[in-house]
Amino acid sequence: MSRISKDPEIRKNELVDAAEALFVAEGYENTSVSAIVKRIGVAQGTFYYYFKSKEDVLEAVIARVFDAAIAETASVINDTTLDAAKKLVRLIQIIFTLKDNREDFFRYIHEDRNALLHQKLAGKLLDLLSPILTSIIQQGLHEKSFSVEYPSETAELMLVIIGYLYDHPHEESEVSEKMICAVTGMLEKTLGIAAGKLKLNI
Amino acid sequence: MSRISKDPEIRKNELVDAAEALFVAEGYENTSVSAIVKRIGVAQGTFYYYFKSKEDVLEAVIARVFDAAIAETASVINDTTLDAAKKLVRLIQIIFTLKDNREDFFRYIHEDRNALLHQKLAGKLLDLLSPILTSIIQQGLHEKSFSVEYPSETAELMLVIIGYLYDHPHEESEVSEKMICAVTGMLEKTLGIAAGKLKLNI
Repeated sequence: MSRISKDPEIRKNELVDAAEALFVAEGYENTSVSAIVKRIGVAQGTFYYYFKSKEDVLEAVIARVFDAAIAETASVINDTTLDAAKKLVRLIQIIFTLKDNREDFFRYIHEDRNALLHQKLAGKLLDLLSPILTSIIQQGLHEKSFSVEYPSETAELMLVIIGYLYDHPHEESEVSEKMICAVTGMLEKTLGIAAGKLKLNI
Repeated sequence: MSRISKDPEIRKNELVDAAEALFVAEGYENTSVSAIVKRIGVAQGTFYYYFKSKEDVLEAVIARVFDAAIAETASVINDTTLDAAKKLVRLIQIIFTLKDNREDFFRYIHEDRNALLHQKLAGKLLDLLSPILTSIIQQGLHEKSFSVEYPSETAELMLVIIGYLYDHPHEESEVSEKMICAVTGMLEKTLGIAAGKLKLNI
């Protein structure tokens, strides 16, 4: 095994950085473990000290993309000054700013050749966000401001709708505006809240 | 160019049959044009008389999977004895029986390696069904039984929800039952119709 001279967390992060940059630039398929280690000048053994395989470092790249967003949602969930509707608006805004910091990565996963990666990422995001949205719906039910049967299934479906809007930004702004209104209306009706209550700024 | 001894439509169909069978058995990537022509004993030139490429015959396979369903929806749309809510229920049932006749094909497109094909197929289905569902919503608005702003955008979103249910059959029947109820409730609320009005038998 190669000598680990840096702090392990820093070294691991460097490997994830290098992998992400290469996946975006060259494509996941075309990136080898040796290209990743070469980029930061470490031995192949260093890579295998931290990761089992190329798939494993990809998982780490994906997890990191979501880490900040998940941490941010936690602070929203724990904010006792916000009612359920306000928390929902904040959650949607967090989802829509996810790609702002990683434009290259999000463009990359929308390429045809990365369809599987895109599918896995969307599934992972759904798994992570479903319990968070479920807890917001439950707060709304507790506050008697929401009216929803099947909170967790409805949370999942709401995220599918939000995800669709997220993945299909329409080119012409008029169409996009209508789609945002349609999604907003569908979410309001689903939650049993008044029209105009959810003000999405996305 | 090779001699075309059979009726062109029959021959073309044979090629589509052979391509579909091989794509399912061997995978799209692993199927060559020469394997397709070999399966039915014709020359390579015969293939290129009908199709530009392997991608082209794949399009034909996909189109054929949907042809019967689209024809069936046309007869539902033109049935003047059905109100909008009944037409919607019938449309959803047609979508859910799509895979009954082509189980192998639908299992195949859900394999990881066929993620792109799955994505394209879902997109094509959405494009085909959106105008049909929009016309049903417009009938409902005309009958004053539906209350929907943005009919075409809402049709698209409703199909996304139905598509999610379609693609994610849950293993445990209890969960699946709840998810069907959640989708039904969401659709009813979106259309502004009474709870229990949509009776989905899927």
